[in-house]
Amino acid sequence: MIKNLHRGAASIAFREPLYIESCASIVSQKEGEGPLGKLFDIVCEDPMFGCDTWEAAESTLQKETATLALNRSRLTPDDVQLMFAGDLLAQTAATCFGSAGIGIPFYGLYGACSTMGESLSLGALSLTAGFGSRVLCVTSSHFASAEKEFRFPLGYGNQRPLSATWTVTGSGACILSTTPPAKSSPLRSSVGFAAITGLTAGRVMDYGLKDSMNMGGCMAPAACDTIARNFSDFSRTPSDYDAVFTGDLGTVGQKILLDLLSEQNIDLASIHQDCGLLIYDNETQDTHSGGSGCGCSATVLAAYILPKVVSGEWKRILFVPTGALLSKVSFNEGDSIPGIAHAVVIEHMEV
Amino acid sequence: MIKNLHRGAASIAFREPLYIESCASIVSQKEGEGPLGKLFDIVCEDPMFGCDTWEAAESTLQKETATLALNRSRLTPDDVQLMFAGDLLAQTAATCFGSAGIGIPFYGLYGACSTMGESLSLGALSLTAGFGSRVLCVTSSHFASAEKEFRFPLGYGNQRPLSATWTVTGSGACILSTTPPAKSSPLRSSVGFAAITGLTAGRVMDYGLKDSMNMGGCMAPAACDTIARNFSDFSRTPSDYDAVFTGDLGTVGQKILLDLLSEQNIDLASIHQDCGLLIYDNETQDTHSGGSGCGCSATVLAAYILPKVVSGEWKRILFVPTGALLSKVSFNEGDSIPGIAHAVVIEHMEV
Repeated sequence: MIKNLHRGAASIAFREPLYIESCASIVSQKEGEGPLGKLFDIVCEDPMFGCDTWEAAESTLQKETATLALNRSRLTPDDVQLMFAGDLLAQTAATCFGSAGIGIPFYGLYGACSTMGESLSLGALSLTAGFGSRVLCVTSSHFASAEKEFRFPLGYGNQRPLSATWTVTGSGACILSTTPPAKSSPLRSSVGFAAITGLTAGRVMDYGLKDSMNMGGCMAPAACDTIARNFSDFSRTPSDYDAVFTGDLGTVGQKILLDLLSEQNIDLASIHQDCGLLIYDNETQDTHSGGSGCGCSATVLAAYILPKVVSGEWKRILFVPTGALLSKVSFNEGDSIPGIAHAVVIEHMEV
Repeated sequence: MIKNLHRGAASIAFREPLYIESCASIVSQKEGEGPLGKLFDIVCEDPMFGCDTWEAAESTLQKETATLALNRSRLTPDDVQLMFAGDLLAQTAATCFGSAGIGIPFYGLYGACSTMGESLSLGALSLTAGFGSRVLCVTSSHFASAEKEFRFPLGYGNQRPLSATWTVTGSGACILSTTPPAKSSPLRSSVGFAAITGLTAGRVMDYGLKDSMNMGGCMAPAACDTIARNFSDFSRTPSDYDAVFTGDLGTVGQKILLDLLSEQNIDLASIHQDCGLLIYDNETQDTHSGGSGCGCSATVLAAYILPKVVSGEWKRILFVPTGALLSKVSFNEGDSIPGIAHAVVIEHMEV
């Protein structure tokens, strides 16, 4: 049953789990050379993905990833009733010209780099409400389209401070289902599968920071708020999770998150991981604070996290993509950079 | 009960209606001088809404509208568990610095001018899934921030073709609840109230049109697709609705919509209305094809449509906000302008 959580809670424990039936990840060369390189489904050496513009490249990347997630479970678009997708570009152009073109009824999202958490959350809520039996959740980011959207032309060769993150060129997709994956499914092992069992919706947190080259610092308060509320709403402690994955706090944001949580007597150090710190090797790849972008947490989820939940190595994890809410206009007009983080509880379910 | 609609359907008929407990609309001077001028809650003569930038003006407009919707039902942010909001700006900046700042857990949306349909749909689905008892749905648009975002600097004095629409400066908000509005509620009459009883999710439709000065033409195929699927999924005909409201097709888009529907043997002429054609008087206001923007359908819903459903003048209407999916980058790179439309069934419920 749906747990009646306390007044003020913004969490839900689902009556029936939402199974993750399929997933897919496609990245580019730099991600392929990183520590998780061998785990991605496809590493495309061409950063243009065969297209003429960076935006079309990202659209193609995203659409191919969504299609791969369908293909891996031998599904067609007609088998999926709803899609939740988004990206970082203005008017979510990568999505509108990307996965939205597949033709599945579609709700567009903007949650900055938290979008994979948002899409999984809304997909799980829609299935729980009785809307169909399958939803597709997709996000993407592209280093070059994001630099053009938020920062400087690539040819300018701008220097980056050590607190800056590197936008992942990648897309991740998941298909959620009301029924467990079939025996042939890539997300079913001999012992079980992965399912979403609950979520905590994020609130916008604004500590007044204005440095777009330190987005980890801008997002850490939101991650802290969401994680602490998840623990409170579900009456859990860090020992109830095998790991808590934030999206892209990086080295700077991770330190702030752990400090903020320790002020609330939550010691997350032993189980905290950050997708942005997993995807690149800063020693050899010069990515400074780590990876970022919608595609960062989405590809790490599909390639690294879900297989370990499916195999049972992890019994329960918290997936908390983190987003920095800025535009180049808001930044140039001197606004702060609020953060948001959406948490999804993913558990190993035994066959 | 939730109707099991046919395979391929992207509609849901809700087991329990989602009541519209409160709503609010705030517009600027031009909208206040239009045919619906007296119906809006607040007409603010200052297009800057007391701020220094167009973006901050829109954020303030949106936040004040959300707050007014809470105040009209004597609610505080703590009484609402979730918010769905969006706008037209890059990275939905008006929302991130607007209603998101109220502190309610928040999922950000981008559906161009269809966003009010998307926010009501996802709000209704979340409540049906058991997430809390109240959600807030908000959207906004602002003529000046939209011109800056999509077209030309205002000072350039660009000439507009007759197919162009005029972005509404306005914001609309609704609070959905799992229980009927209290006797003191502004959305309860002596005979009843308004509730959402079903929805049809939109698909992206791309007929290859590229003229951003004829967005009605770009969106009409999506409106046709969604309306026709709504009729098919629910086994309804035009006679089952007192009115079908599209968002902002304008005079050009309306004609195309009626032509496209007639090809499917659906005659919508007698009950079709378009929020963009209701909000301005083109004879005196020189708005060409009509009004547009997220704020167009949202303010017309709150100020004009809902009161007539609450009073029982209309028993069942279909609210179909329409969105044109373009960015200035996609437009300048020569991409087409796909459209999307999300439909919400709103019915009069007797006390």
